[in-house]
Amino acid sequence: MHASITLSNNLQSVLVDLIELHIQGKQAHWNVVGKNFRDLHLQLDEIVVDVREFSDQLAERMRALEAIPDGRSSTVATTTHLAPFPDGEVDTTETVDLITERLGSAVDNIRAVHDAVDEEDPTSADVLHVFIEKLEQHAWMVGAENRVPKKRAN
Amino acid sequence: MHASITLSNNLQSVLVDLIELHIQGKQAHWNVVGKNFRDLHLQLDEIVVDVREFSDQLAERMRALEAIPDGRSSTVATTTHLAPFPDGEVDTTETVDLITERLGSAVDNIRAVHDAVDEEDPTSADVLHVFIEKLEQHAWMVGAENRVPKKRAN
Amino acid sequence: MHASITLSNNLQSVLVDLIELHIQGKQAHWNVVGKNFRDLHLQLDEIVVDVREFSDQLAERMRALEAIPDGRSSTVATTTHLAPFPDGEVDTTETVDLITERLGSAVDNIRAVHDAVDEEDPTSADVLHVFIEKLEQHAWMVGAENRVPKKRAN
Amino acid sequence: MHASITLSNNLQSVLVDLIELHIQGKQAHWNVVGKNFRDLHLQLDEIVVDVREFSDQLAERMRALEAIPDGRSSTVATTTHLAPFPDGEVDTTETVDLITERLGSAVDNIRAVHDAVDEEDPTSADVLHVFIEKLEQHAWMVGAENRVPKKRAN
Amino acid sequence: MHASITLSNNLQSVLVDLIELHIQGKQAHWNVVGKNFRDLHLQLDEIVVDVREFSDQLAERMRALEAIPDGRSSTVATTTHLAPFPDGEVDTTETVDLITERLGSAVDNIRAVHDAVDEEDPTSADVLHVFIEKLEQHAWMVGAENRVPKKRAN
Amino acid sequence: MHASITLSNNLQSVLVDLIELHIQGKQAHWNVVGKNFRDLHLQLDEIVVDVREFSDQLAERMRALEAIPDGRSSTVATTTHLAPFPDGEVDTTETVDLITERLGSAVDNIRAVHDAVDEEDPTSADVLHVFIEKLEQHAWMVGAENRVPKKRAN
Amino acid sequence: MHASITLSNNLQSVLVDLIELHIQGKQAHWNVVGKNFRDLHLQLDEIVVDVREFSDQLAERMRALEAIPDGRSSTVATTTHLAPFPDGEVDTTETVDLITERLGSAVDNIRAVHDAVDEEDPTSADVLHVFIEKLEQHAWMVGAENRVPKKRAN
Amino acid sequence: MHASITLSNNLQSVLVDLIELHIQGKQAHWNVVGKNFRDLHLQLDEIVVDVREFSDQLAERMRALEAIPDGRSSTVATTTHLAPFPDGEVDTTETVDLITERLGSAVDNIRAVHDAVDEEDPTSADVLHVFIEKLEQHAWMVGAENRVPKKRAN
Amino acid sequence: MHASITLSNNLQSVLVDLIELHIQGKQAHWNVVGKNFRDLHLQLDEIVVDVREFSDQLAERMRALEAIPDGRSSTVATTTHLAPFPDGEVDTTETVDLITERLGSAVDNIRAVHDAVDEEDPTSADVLHVFIEKLEQHAWMVGAENRVPKKRAN
Amino acid sequence: MHASITLSNNLQSVLVDLIELHIQGKQAHWNVVGKNFRDLHLQLDEIVVDVREFSDQLAERMRALEAIPDGRSSTVATTTHLAPFPDGEVDTTETVDLITERLGSAVDNIRAVHDAVDEEDPTSADVLHVFIEKLEQHAWMVGAENRVPKKRAN
Amino acid sequence: MHASITLSNNLQSVLVDLIELHIQGKQAHWNVVGKNFRDLHLQLDEIVVDVREFSDQLAERMRALEAIPDGRSSTVATTTHLAPFPDGEVDTTETVDLITERLGSAVDNIRAVHDAVDEEDPTSADVLHVFIEKLEQHAWMVGAENRVPKKRAN
Amino acid sequence: MHASITLSNNLQSVLVDLIELHIQGKQAHWNVVGKNFRDLHLQLDEIVVDVREFSDQLAERMRALEAIPDGRSSTVATTTHLAPFPDGEVDTTETVDLITERLGSAVDNIRAVHDAVDEEDPTSADVLHVFIEKLEQHAWMVGAENRVPKKRAN
Repeated sequence: MHASITLSNNLQSVLVDLIELHIQGKQAHWNVVGKNFRDLHLQLDEIVVDVREFSDQLAERMRALEAIPDGRSSTVATTTHLAPFPDGEVDTTETVDLITERLGSAVDNIRAVHDAVDEEDPTSADVLHVFIEKLEQHAWMVGAENRVPKKRAN
Repeated sequence: MHASITLSNNLQSVLVDLIELHIQGKQAHWNVVGKNFRDLHLQLDEIVVDVREFSDQLAERMRALEAIPDGRSSTVATTTHLAPFPDGEVDTTETVDLITERLGSAVDNIRAVHDAVDEEDPTSADVLHVFIEKLEQHAWMVGAENRVPKKRAN
Repeated sequence: MHASITLSNNLQSVLVDLIELHIQGKQAHWNVVGKNFRDLHLQLDEIVVDVREFSDQLAERMRALEAIPDGRSSTVATTTHLAPFPDGEVDTTETVDLITERLGSAVDNIRAVHDAVDEEDPTSADVLHVFIEKLEQHAWMVGAENRVPKKRAN
Repeated sequence: MHASITLSNNLQSVLVDLIELHIQGKQAHWNVVGKNFRDLHLQLDEIVVDVREFSDQLAERMRALEAIPDGRSSTVATTTHLAPFPDGEVDTTETVDLITERLGSAVDNIRAVHDAVDEEDPTSADVLHVFIEKLEQHAWMVGAENRVPKKRAN
Repeated sequence: MHASITLSNNLQSVLVDLIELHIQGKQAHWNVVGKNFRDLHLQLDEIVVDVREFSDQLAERMRALEAIPDGRSSTVATTTHLAPFPDGEVDTTETVDLITERLGSAVDNIRAVHDAVDEEDPTSADVLHVFIEKLEQHAWMVGAENRVPKKRAN
Repeated sequence: MHASITLSNNLQSVLVDLIELHIQGKQAHWNVVGKNFRDLHLQLDEIVVDVREFSDQLAERMRALEAIPDGRSSTVATTTHLAPFPDGEVDTTETVDLITERLGSAVDNIRAVHDAVDEEDPTSADVLHVFIEKLEQHAWMVGAENRVPKKRAN
Repeated sequence: MHASITLSNNLQSVLVDLIELHIQGKQAHWNVVGKNFRDLHLQLDEIVVDVREFSDQLAERMRALEAIPDGRSSTVATTTHLAPFPDGEVDTTETVDLITERLGSAVDNIRAVHDAVDEEDPTSADVLHVFIEKLEQHAWMVGAENRVPKKRAN
Repeated sequence: MHASITLSNNLQSVLVDLIELHIQGKQAHWNVVGKNFRDLHLQLDEIVVDVREFSDQLAERMRALEAIPDGRSSTVATTTHLAPFPDGEVDTTETVDLITERLGSAVDNIRAVHDAVDEEDPTSADVLHVFIEKLEQHAWMVGAENRVPKKRAN
Repeated sequence: MHASITLSNNLQSVLVDLIELHIQGKQAHWNVVGKNFRDLHLQLDEIVVDVREFSDQLAERMRALEAIPDGRSSTVATTTHLAPFPDGEVDTTETVDLITERLGSAVDNIRAVHDAVDEEDPTSADVLHVFIEKLEQHAWMVGAENRVPKKRAN
Repeated sequence: MHASITLSNNLQSVLVDLIELHIQGKQAHWNVVGKNFRDLHLQLDEIVVDVREFSDQLAERMRALEAIPDGRSSTVATTTHLAPFPDGEVDTTETVDLITERLGSAVDNIRAVHDAVDEEDPTSADVLHVFIEKLEQHAWMVGAENRVPKKRAN
Repeated sequence: MHASITLSNNLQSVLVDLIELHIQGKQAHWNVVGKNFRDLHLQLDEIVVDVREFSDQLAERMRALEAIPDGRSSTVATTTHLAPFPDGEVDTTETVDLITERLGSAVDNIRAVHDAVDEEDPTSADVLHVFIEKLEQHAWMVGAENRVPKKRAN
Repeated sequence: MHASITLSNNLQSVLVDLIELHIQGKQAHWNVVGKNFRDLHLQLDEIVVDVREFSDQLAERMRALEAIPDGRSSTVATTTHLAPFPDGEVDTTETVDLITERLGSAVDNIRAVHDAVDEEDPTSADVLHVFIEKLEQHAWMVGAENRVPKKRAN
């Protein structure tokens, strides 16, 4: 199957966010300090491992559809939907919020392109579902650290 | 060997607590929030893994003694010695206390039946020792989070 | 994403069946007797392993959607769609029928909530597809034991 | 769930192509010669491993739906959509084209039955998506050998 | 070493039986029903795994002798010594007999060509011994299910 | 610690039964035929593996106590408490009964020497408990094949 | 294939030696003392592992040929070609000689029956070659301990 | 130890090249086409794996020296010594040259800072040696594809 | 459970011996020379691995009983029951005697406290049985090197 | 190579610190309590594992240089550069500071002897670099827990 | 068994070729350049691994037959049947031919001695068959790179 | 980097010794006899495994530096610094001395070229340090067998 320009652009827009996410994840992994350092340091690496795998799976899906992924650093830096990560050391509590927010941004964009992708190629949409499930799980697990309990009544 | 009704009842009373313990462990694993979330989330799963293994070992010990384990959810819910786990999200600090208390209740009942078991079937008593050692280790490791140091002089 | 009450209730209704299923699976694993014992004993454990994994995946999916799973023994015992498992030893042939029927009940409820789930969150629907595929495979493999051949002409 | 005749026939039509594909893959694996022999020889085995797994997953899905797969050699030889593989030794370059074409034929048929399958049983459609994703990835990776670069502007 | 036409034809005649055997093995694996289903279902897969390995080893032995294996589905379907496998579901007892008979046919042909192979290339004959040993072991283990004891006095 | 003659003799009496048990287990593993062959064939090997390990652990325990194990075939054949295994092929149903009986004999003797062993060396008694637990589990699992259900009321 | 009485008897005569060999190997493993204890203790276990595997392979080969292996302790003790192993502790140097001699006896008998076996069933003869190669390797490696160098000029 | 600004800057200059290198390695991995595609596609991934590991090791070395790594995409894109990778599909032959050149640039910069690093902290210099050895090995292995033999006389 | 001072002191007295034992084991591992060096060098490491594991298990058992282990080097050096290990290189024969003696001392103390421990906490006594069994096995296996055979008649 | 007394003494001075470090690491591992207990408890074991490995590597390096390591508890207790670890339970925050300080002391001494070691035996100096890199990494990772962020400007 | 001088010489003549083959294989592995470098570089290592294993198996077979292998470099260099490998870098195409030719020479000599070996010791002949099968497989797989297809009609 | 002729020659002079060392190691592995045979036989294989790895690492380092390794048997036999290994069987005690001496010769040459290598390419010097550390460790461990203790006072 040969992807339309629309499909190709939609997948490309997800790709740059995934690459930016694993780069920011490593930046946070290195520069976080403070209470509960080790847990967060390890958790960030788990996110990086998953997201690197997702970016590879997505870029190879583009290739299988005869589209051409652009995952170069300048393209990533200029086109990602994610806010830049701050320079220097960052406190654990602040890191939790920053990463939870980036995970949220990445998922928001995937949901935004989902219906268009699904219409043209449901196989690619299924690939996106796997990303959403895992990224939302990470968002919950990182963010839970900064949460206070609410009682059941959603 | 064919277990007496007393032996069978004693082992059954331990069995329902072990099943309740792994069910409560998962409930806590899912609904805990707050500081040190990830450590506790992982630690609860380690307890669940051990306790599921213990419940299986015990029920199969009963079968080897020609006793009949009853590990159905209604039996468990109505006959366990463990206090019910609260509904909804629970803070990490409170979860630590709740789980330490449940581990304590489970061990208390095992110790309560131990001498009667040992008299009729020392092999089964040895099985119980393994449970006690591991459950008390978990109780220490979960509970240490909420402790302040005391100096040596026990 | 924040689940609606409807989505949360639908996923909760699947969760209690999965938990009941692994509890009944163990009960059967322990108390089955008769011809072909070992095969069925092992097969029941394979089901238990899969279903425990599914219950965890589903409860964590609820958490990622900010819903609150309730997997406590009393909740499970009172809200599951599965018929209770009989007390005491059960013959292999009867066990095959009982478990095949419980697998069917669990799948029926997943199919019943599927469309509502899919409309609000197709990612969660994809998770349910994995459960359906595997549970139906188990139902076929357990049930084949009690079947007689039919010729091709479906 | 009990598959309709239409669903059963659609899955059966995919099954024979998957079986033919792993048989042709081995034939090519054995009889290829020429430049880049080893890469292609290994790559063909990776395809065979995946496709054998897919054929088993699909036939067991049919069983779970109470359909009856027919994967016998005569059925496969006479009903597959794939063109026959030539006899004797085949050059690497020609093998690349032949296999890329067969992968394409297999995918074309899966896409042709997809909507009908999805309407009756979305769980089976999800199974087909996994096949499409992997087969299209193999088609890209095998076919890339005979390609010349095009610039980005799809 | 360059195989004579006779040697090549002899090895080819074994090859098509091995391929037919793994195809029939899967057909049986999928469509068997009845008492002791799971054991036979698993056992058939063990045969398939071994026979697929043997067919590959034999075809590659032919290549090493500069012969050209023909393992295409139409060649297999028309030249195998094995009787066709029946369509549709098959009872476990009947499946045991059908597969035991096919294993026997495959071995019979290997024994028939053995001396001619051994005279020209004892290395290839040694390869055939490995097939005979394993296929006869499978025949015993599958067939034992339908046997009644005889006392020692062979 | 240096074992008394009594302790040495008691452990020696257990040792010969364990060796006889793994030899009979293999004899049964080879010569069983009939319905459910494969399960029993595999199960017998699991018993052999455990019992070989136990015989080694016990003989080395004797060495650590400066006693001298005698595990020679003539000693085993003439001093074991186990009834001889019949010659020739044996039906699965009969094999189940024969092996369940031998497991029972071996356990009976261990229980008979247990108190004397425990008085002199509780460490060795703990080793015996491990044997009892596992042998009784095997006896249940082998014997369950020939059982009919009884209701709970032991 | 159905073994003749001659073939069956020949394989049976090898079987009892293999079983006696692993039983004597364990006896030596337990009761050896003196210089280089650990090496010999470990080496004896390596022999036991191989020979147990060989005895199982041979007995199952007999079954595949419809012969009936008799590996019971009394049969082994009375029909083996191996000299009995001495009672009690044995010095390392003497153990080396005893085991080397037993390995030699076992191989002598295999060579004695080889031609008759090969004539009726070359596949079984190939199985025997594997035993010879490994047993002679063990004989060299155990015996080398008690050897003094000779110069090259065999 | 607390790194000087010079040491920190030198390590930072290596870090950005390593990150750029694994990003370009993936870009090439995805977009390469032409003869010998598969080998180069796999080889590029081996480089990416090593270089990701090196970047992590180096950034964590900086942290251990109380320096602060900046591995954000914008920093990488603007400060790397590596020439940008071209957009779109690239032929295998050209890819070989492009990657060999980038590996060379990365090594050149490591050699350029080596002496200053070694003077202040020989432990960090040893870390750099490991990078040099592996990157130069990769450069040889990628570049060998485009080479013609020279005779020995270096 | 909260350990009494007596129980705590008894376990502490075992702990320091275990720590001293693994420290002396390493000292011997490094400084042994002479005939059979390699075996003893390896055997000492096996002892060290076991004893380090035991010391950790015991200290954590103390923690689970709310006792406080003191495993500091000065405490170990001044309170252990083990004689100091000699300085410098030690011959293999002498090392065998030294280590056998230390293993004996450690076991003697465990046996000395056993009954008091068992009365207060049989679970801890079971832990000690595991230590005794393994340490006595090591003592036999190390000491066997310096032994001459005695005949059976204990 | 034969180490000079100076080289031998320098390596010995590192050795006692490494042994003291793994002993203190275990003491801390057992007696720590308070917030973030589990992370620190696990992290301390990772340090112990590395440092035990380093002490063995260093002592064996001394042996290869014909020097004689003295790693006995009394030597360690009296000659280490590390301050003694406090008795009894210690709070997590204080433990972090205590261990970070000990890691720092150990590294300080290695750096102090480095140049003298490097001059006589650069191979041994390379061994020390590996220790420094890993110990400083551990110091950063343990200490990060008690840190607050500083902005980039080193 | 004690090998005759003839048997010993025949096995020795195979041994030197196997050693020469793994030495030449490494030489080629290092110095090959040109198109398809990586495949050939890896393939050569697979040959080296197999041939090193074969040379060890053969030399140990000689030892088991009380013959004395001579595998020293000077003996190998002067007595091998293989033509010397050229100095310096070698093109991939030429390397393919050179290695295919050496594999052929090695097999030719094994076939030349086979009948004499088989007459005296069929067990050793079986060992040679394994070498022939694998070396001819490698020859095909290396040589296929330089081949053009021929049609079936051998 | 392009190695100078001096650097190339220095690395080549190390390479031939490493190849000669693994060839002599195998020769000794095969032909050693006498007391402690098994330990030495195994130890020699550990040396062979390490040295084969080192020779490959070094030759590939030469390639990365654009030098051309010559590892052919005739080059090795005529240019190595190692004395030839004697023909025929060798006693364990003599083998220990012979191998210790060869390890010493190999290290002496590495130390002789070290400074020149380090000056031109410190990365290659670091590679040599790894060889020295491991070869000196092997020399200690092999040679310790023939040593008598000396007291500490180096």
